[in-house]
Amino acid sequence: MRADLHHEQSHEVDSHIKNPSTKWVLNSPDPPGFCQHIFGSIKKTVFPQRNNARSSSSSQKKESHCERIIVVLSSVFPVLIWGRKYTASKFKNDLISGLTLASLSIPQSIGYAALANLAPQYGLYGSVIPPLIYSVMGTSQELAIGPVAVVSLLISSMISKLVDPVADPVSYMKLVFTVTFFTGTFQALFGLLRLGFLIDFLSHAAIVGFMAGAAIVIGLQQMKSLLGISHFTTKTDVVSVLDAVIKSFHTSWYPLNFVIGCSFLIFILITRFIGKRNKKLFWLPAISPVISVILSTLIVYLTRADEHGVKIIKHFKGGLNPSSLNQLEFNGPHLGEAAKAGFICAIIALTEAVAVGRSFASIKGYNLDGNKEMLAMGCMNLAGSMSSCYVSTGSFSRTAVNFSAGCQSTVSNIVMAITVFISLQLLTKLLYYTPLAILASIILSALPGLIDYNEAYHIWKVDKMDFLACIGAFFGVLFASVEIGLLVAVCVSFGRLILNAIRPGIEELGRLPGTDIFCDKAQYPGVLDVPGISIIRLNSGSFCFANANPIKEKITKCVTEENVKEVAKKPITGIILDMSSVISIDSSGIIALEEMYKKLVSRNIHLAIANPRWKVIHKLKIAGFVEKVGSDCIFLTVNEAVDACLGTKSIGVSNC
Amino acid sequence: MRADLHHEQSHEVDSHIKNPSTKWVLNSPDPPGFCQHIFGSIKKTVFPQRNNARSSSSSQKKESHCERIIVVLSSVFPVLIWGRKYTASKFKNDLISGLTLASLSIPQSIGYAALANLAPQYGLYGSVIPPLIYSVMGTSQELAIGPVAVVSLLISSMISKLVDPVADPVSYMKLVFTVTFFTGTFQALFGLLRLGFLIDFLSHAAIVGFMAGAAIVIGLQQMKSLLGISHFTTKTDVVSVLDAVIKSFHTSWYPLNFVIGCSFLIFILITRFIGKRNKKLFWLPAISPVISVILSTLIVYLTRADEHGVKIIKHFKGGLNPSSLNQLEFNGPHLGEAAKAGFICAIIALTEAVAVGRSFASIKGYNLDGNKEMLAMGCMNLAGSMSSCYVSTGSFSRTAVNFSAGCQSTVSNIVMAITVFISLQLLTKLLYYTPLAILASIILSALPGLIDYNEAYHIWKVDKMDFLACIGAFFGVLFASVEIGLLVAVCVSFGRLILNAIRPGIEELGRLPGTDIFCDKAQYPGVLDVPGISIIRLNSGSFCFANANPIKEKITKCVTEENVKEVAKKPITGIILDMSSVISIDSSGIIALEEMYKKLVSRNIHLAIANPRWKVIHKLKIAGFVEKVGSDCIFLTVNEAVDACLGTKSIGVSNC
Repeated sequence: MRADLHHEQSHEVDSHIKNPSTKWVLNSPDPPGFCQHIFGSIKKTVFPQRNNARSSSSSQKKESHCERIIVVLSSVFPVLIWGRKYTASKFKNDLISGLTLASLSIPQSIGYAALANLAPQYGLYGSVIPPLIYSVMGTSQELAIGPVAVVSLLISSMISKLVDPVADPVSYMKLVFTVTFFTGTFQALFGLLRLGFLIDFLSHAAIVGFMAGAAIVIGLQQMKSLLGISHFTTKTDVVSVLDAVIKSFHTSWYPLNFVIGCSFLIFILITRFIGKRNKKLFWLPAISPVISVILSTLIVYLTRADEHGVKIIKHFKGGLNPSSLNQLEFNGPHLGEAAKAGFICAIIALTEAVAVGRSFASIKGYNLDGNKEMLAMGCMNLAGSMSSCYVSTGSFSRTAVNFSAGCQSTVSNIVMAITVFISLQLLTKLLYYTPLAILASIILSALPGLIDYNEAYHIWKVDKMDFLACIGAFFGVLFASVEIGLLVAVCVSFGRLILNAIRPGIEELGRLPGTDIFCDKAQYPGVLDVPGISIIRLNSGSFCFANANPIKEKITKCVTEENVKEVAKKPITGIILDMSSVISIDSSGIIALEEMYKKLVSRNIHLAIANPRWKVIHKLKIAGFVEKVGSDCIFLTVNEAVDACLGTKSIGVSNC
Repeated sequence: MRADLHHEQSHEVDSHIKNPSTKWVLNSPDPPGFCQHIFGSIKKTVFPQRNNARSSSSSQKKESHCERIIVVLSSVFPVLIWGRKYTASKFKNDLISGLTLASLSIPQSIGYAALANLAPQYGLYGSVIPPLIYSVMGTSQELAIGPVAVVSLLISSMISKLVDPVADPVSYMKLVFTVTFFTGTFQALFGLLRLGFLIDFLSHAAIVGFMAGAAIVIGLQQMKSLLGISHFTTKTDVVSVLDAVIKSFHTSWYPLNFVIGCSFLIFILITRFIGKRNKKLFWLPAISPVISVILSTLIVYLTRADEHGVKIIKHFKGGLNPSSLNQLEFNGPHLGEAAKAGFICAIIALTEAVAVGRSFASIKGYNLDGNKEMLAMGCMNLAGSMSSCYVSTGSFSRTAVNFSAGCQSTVSNIVMAITVFISLQLLTKLLYYTPLAILASIILSALPGLIDYNEAYHIWKVDKMDFLACIGAFFGVLFASVEIGLLVAVCVSFGRLILNAIRPGIEELGRLPGTDIFCDKAQYPGVLDVPGISIIRLNSGSFCFANANPIKEKITKCVTEENVKEVAKKPITGIILDMSSVISIDSSGIIALEEMYKKLVSRNIHLAIANPRWKVIHKLKIAGFVEKVGSDCIFLTVNEAVDACLGTKSIGVSNC
């Protein structure tokens, strides 16, 4: 009914219009309405497949029932597509890269489990079930799945606040699995509801700052193992950790841990340096952690250094992942907190995995489907939460090794998972004497990759507000907590967005010499004024409650002042409002336009509107503004508006 | 240094460029930097006078020290300007309108004081000192100052939560004065720091909904007096109030109150109806409240109805405003809450006063200086908080009466203040027998003006999201509390703003037949495709972290799909990105552009960028993007980009 109403109206004004392009502007079809828009986007989100199928059904013959199931299945399990073309030569590559990956995964996983305040086997469990599930559901060929440093830090910092992992390890474990369950649920939901845009809410700059802060916090956490401190703080901020370290200097610390840790850290860093210089030796940095573990374990075993204060892993339960289904708790006092932690972990884990996956996919030149990735991650973490794993995701350092080792598909993840599983069956007893300091040095060696000075400098150079979000996240993580750091970054990013959207910016335009093109006077200093006409472009995407009044005042003020000042010049007789940048307008904006029109008319100045966008002209028509100012005051381009204002043609004669 | 650096760069690329307009785009001067921008706007905010003076000093001779003081003084006290031209004939008008105003003010003020849970004299105090101060500082000629309904409701609802006004009236009074002090401080600060935009943060739609909700809540509060209920709830939401009313029906209520209240309410409404039909009788609705008060007081006095349950005012302390300086409390437990309440009152009071003032100023055709108004309101409330007044502001109903009575300046406020002051000295004893139900009926009669059905319908018609903010505020106020209502409205308004700013919108453009103009295909269905070229306009004011990835994916997807589908047509060989709507870009946006460029190049598709705005091209230059894609891929207009893509000229040959 509404559409009819204003169609009539536009037909009615039709007869008065002399300018053909004004007709185009006024007679454009209605943009999709509010409800149409909402339902359309929901439909598109929920049934993306069906829409595609329907649109192509006219050209193609109808698929049979069976074929359709295969299509759906292979969209959920991409392995069904690439598995058909899988060859023995590819498997050879995947086998090698999977074994290399496992040699890096085993020590890293044990270390990250320690970072998350968990027993070592839980790190290894996380490198068995989740990679297996990802390998049949994921779309990335290179992504190596398992526990990662930042998520381990998130788990330990958020859950240690609720339950003390030392005093009550059973409740702590239960809460970890519950958080993992929520993480998986959120990730799967994001994927199913196609909410991929959620992970974009952390801006690039915020991630750079957050990762750097997290790396320093993780590094500081390693002081516990590196110095052999028994009692350590559960807080993660720099002040508390340094305080705990300094206090422990006075009580009990064992320099031998430090010596072992540092010497192997130097060994790992040297192998990495060699690997970087000589690309053929890529396997050297990949297996150096395992070599360190074996060597240090042997040394401790032979010298019985554990009796001299060297902390060792000791108990280490091997065997298959036990079920943790009965450990999930949905009625405890921390349910809300667990869901919140799960949400944060879901976002951070996805951000890291998708960023890593995308950057390697773009090297190989294929596309990563964000929504499928999220579904795969969600399923693997849901399955993980029921099989004693904590949150897994794609790891940057391991994915890089996987890529360098020449992996061809997710089969390398399967090889790694099987290798880790075998180690869990056979090797756990051999790791009894592995010093904790070695795990710390393996984690420390992976941290420099998380700190990106160059990118931070680049951000500073390009965009100061982005840099503010970056250092906000950095210092937030460093001095408060990971959550506060993320909150600061999100607030700065969105605050900047709002400020940009509502800035009451206007630009004066002038004619580029010898053309019909009108440009910003400040941007193009050579442009020429049109005598007697002030051309103003609104420099804001929405003309709304937050900026309508200031813009109105600026425009009327600028006209009035110019009229007063430049008496010598030709007085302003027309204002052309270039609305080409304005994408949306609300009722406050329309009221401001009406008031502006009234004020200008009372000063005998014409108002012309150039190039209103679809939604804007639609709303102006509905609100009756077009009727008020007269349809002859609306133009498609600034040039036409200027011609009309200068000529004796339409403007000023009829309505305006 | 930075400027030098990229100036060099732009000079360097200069020699390659064949297209003259590309030179214009690339050689534009740097936009003001971040620091420059911040300092510039602070300077402008803090020293607006000085800037003006400096800019005009070249043309005018320098003012003497004395003259400058006069200029500053008269900018703070506009009375010094208009006072010089004030005439006796104007005073005659002001005297009449001031007396009319007083006859409406006295009963209204007493009623609003009751609404704010205060003794009647505090309402009258608020109609003495604040109007006097406003009359020398304000810039509006019509605004009538005093207590208003909505602010009284705010005070009672926010402070009753902290201190019970019945159980501890002394603490309640202290808190009211403290809140008034904060309100004045915030308002004066807003004025001094030129933060006028803050009151724009309540969108027009939100105010419509808020006022309607507040009117209903205020009306329900009057049930207490109208039914003669002794014990009433201090909550303001509909459910609690109706619950209290229903409960009181079972205990104690006095129908006589209801009879008196309703009969005089009908009398007032009839006089208003007459006043509307016959403009000459405008004084009838204005003095009908006073007539009602006098008549009902006489009736109660003569019939001794107070002994039959009719609630009367009783105690009423007359005399001069006592000082309340020693009642301000800055170390109590509720200081934070008082500051918060002061902030909300400051915003709401200013919103109402500025809206009313502006609408009447626009009728008379003069400008209201928002910042001066805020300073004046702040000073009058600061002074009020020290002389036993609670928050005063410009009232809509009284301003309308003032205007109809033909006021010429703020002198009518002075006349009103003196009249109220005399009444305080002489008449308070006469009001002993005034029934409370009369005050309720006076307040009720003023409420319909706050509910604007037509505007709500207009908002619904024009903008559904605006309407959501409107009913959000309405139901928030009605069913939760005034603060929640405001919060809902602000959240909806800003949420919509963010959604609009980050919507990953793109539009395909086509050529308007017979012109060089390129328009949205959806908006102008008649436009023609350019074969082999896809022209895409970004439909968002900022290309940033929140929408860069989805936009990138949409564009690459749409190109790839079209290439696959439309094999019969000419395949796409170039994409032109019209960036004319994009006002800001951040580092995530630049990265997305780079990735898009890489992906397109890998598919042998050219990327051209048309009409980048000032800040965007500046950032693209700094980030090295221009160097990467080659300066020949950047154009001033879509038309030039199309020509270049179609022709054999520059594009595709050199860099792209």
